[in-house]
Amino acid sequence: MNQEETFNTRTDISELGEFNLIDQLTFETVLKQPTSIKGIGDDAAVIDSGDHFTLVSTDMLVEGIHFDLSYTPLKHLGYKAIIVNLSDIYAMNAVPTQVTVSIGISNRFSVEALEEIYKGINLACDSYNVDLVGGDTTSSQKGLILSITAIGVANKGQVAYRSGAKVGDIICVSGSLGAPYLGLHILEREKQIFAELPTLQPKLEDHQYVISRLLKPEARKDIIEALEQGNCIPTSMIDISDGLASELHHIARQSGVGIIIEEAKVPIHPDAKMQAIDFGLDPITCALHGGEDYELLFTISPSDFEAIRYLPDISIIGEVVTRNQGIKLISESGKEHVLTSQGWNHFNQ
Amino acid sequence: MNQEETFNTRTDISELGEFNLIDQLTFETVLKQPTSIKGIGDDAAVIDSGDHFTLVSTDMLVEGIHFDLSYTPLKHLGYKAIIVNLSDIYAMNAVPTQVTVSIGISNRFSVEALEEIYKGINLACDSYNVDLVGGDTTSSQKGLILSITAIGVANKGQVAYRSGAKVGDIICVSGSLGAPYLGLHILEREKQIFAELPTLQPKLEDHQYVISRLLKPEARKDIIEALEQGNCIPTSMIDISDGLASELHHIARQSGVGIIIEEAKVPIHPDAKMQAIDFGLDPITCALHGGEDYELLFTISPSDFEAIRYLPDISIIGEVVTRNQGIKLISESGKEHVLTSQGWNHFNQ
Repeated sequence: MNQEETFNTRTDISELGEFNLIDQLTFETVLKQPTSIKGIGDDAAVIDSGDHFTLVSTDMLVEGIHFDLSYTPLKHLGYKAIIVNLSDIYAMNAVPTQVTVSIGISNRFSVEALEEIYKGINLACDSYNVDLVGGDTTSSQKGLILSITAIGVANKGQVAYRSGAKVGDIICVSGSLGAPYLGLHILEREKQIFAELPTLQPKLEDHQYVISRLLKPEARKDIIEALEQGNCIPTSMIDISDGLASELHHIARQSGVGIIIEEAKVPIHPDAKMQAIDFGLDPITCALHGGEDYELLFTISPSDFEAIRYLPDISIIGEVVTRNQGIKLISESGKEHVLTSQGWNHFNQ
Repeated sequence: MNQEETFNTRTDISELGEFNLIDQLTFETVLKQPTSIKGIGDDAAVIDSGDHFTLVSTDMLVEGIHFDLSYTPLKHLGYKAIIVNLSDIYAMNAVPTQVTVSIGISNRFSVEALEEIYKGINLACDSYNVDLVGGDTTSSQKGLILSITAIGVANKGQVAYRSGAKVGDIICVSGSLGAPYLGLHILEREKQIFAELPTLQPKLEDHQYVISRLLKPEARKDIIEALEQGNCIPTSMIDISDGLASELHHIARQSGVGIIIEEAKVPIHPDAKMQAIDFGLDPITCALHGGEDYELLFTISPSDFEAIRYLPDISIIGEVVTRNQGIKLISESGKEHVLTSQGWNHFNQ
């Protein structure tokens, strides 16, 4: 097929969606190197480094798609870009050690703007004891593009894949869910109001919690450390970037299991709950499908129950069941609902 | 400084240039992890993995800045994107083993177009025995963006940094230089002609060598293997992406030495020489400042002279001298010229 035909025979990318697209593009990929333990399809790739594993994860953030600079401070953006990548390494039950940062910028940005981004990058690196070891700065035709690669390490027996959940395992989630989605709602609303009435000052004070969860997320280093202290290795793990429901589907599909979770057990912060109700949204819908939480979703063997039982900030939300039982939510009224995956699809926006 | 002021107090990025910009943004970077052996400032970062080193290099390629799709086949683009990153790993005297690929694409591209890019990526991975282990596909506001990270390995005593050149060392370069720059000239000329006279078919048959050097470069895996077989570890090494002169400056500055090269020894392919003359350009200028050659520039100890003397495709072009002698070119007529660094500066284009 020549270039002309390639552009003519066209399947729109939005027809496939992000996950199917990556599947279609990489399904023929064969791992040839004996050191390639895990390739595409988990939060990070796993490479055999002799006495330990090296983890590699990469993410691209594009202005206008992943962030809006009209309400995202540049320093926060730099911070968050690092955090979301570290989160992918923690989600393998590993410890991030280094990052590389590539930035594409249009001439709309000044050196001072770039310095603000780097302040956020350096702050995140310092907070998580990670080194910035490489990168690339280039111009772009339009907007700001950040591409981060995070490197981490793990003992060989310690890595938690998406594929390890077993029937009977307990499903856990860290922190609380839904707040970043509500933070986004507020900022988008204020942006709209400002566009229509530029003299009105935005009222953001009452919404600090949900907004800060969106603009300045943290990665759950503390959870990984607590699990290690408790000698608990999760049977599977993933971080929540596309929404709890979507991540549960990843674990179920890759582990070949079913999942049942209880609505009443899904952790939602009181501020997020209030905010959802203010917007006329169902809090559980925000928690299930909002995304950008960067909390950890993991399964543990029932024999590890005592190890995590009293750990702070971990909620038990359900149980791994057989595949033919499907993926279900039991509502507060006791009714069973099929839980659809409904991650954010940037290509459909 | 708030966001508003950040945009107001502006230093244009073009005022600094790429290298100074990265220096300014990262000069405060401190390496905290004991495993971070080398951070920013070489072709790749070096991480201690116990019994060996792991190398990491990353590059972002932006449509309209680094490539022009009006004359770059998508499959070639995918191939080249991998090659330029592998070249950075070879330039540390290391062997690439894995890559990750992030792609940002606007909705102007179809799934079929992405598949073409991946065909090139997979071909390069197969040819160089490298595994594609991760990546990200997202939409962009405009154009195509490729961000690649390459991972490699090296024995601990084997890594060649930019900073190891010693006075008296022999300066070597692989292959020949200048052709990709001339290939670019031809394609830009044909693009211009086509814009003015769309019925004229481009005449590219006579220029195959220089065009293929631009569109389908190779990384010098063979040179690294030959050096290893000859038990020769270069004292310093860098790959030629910005032009021989620019790379000589990097080695001189980071090694704290001076450099003298001989014009007559700089390898230029006969086709490139002819092409330069056709364009009214000086072939040596194309070889010194053209860039995108992806050949290896390295220094060896005089005691290794016999090891490389009969290796094919390696030219000895000069000698490392003391810093106060500067960086000089001796012309064919025997005259000394100060050699200025004049790499491509994307921010000035």
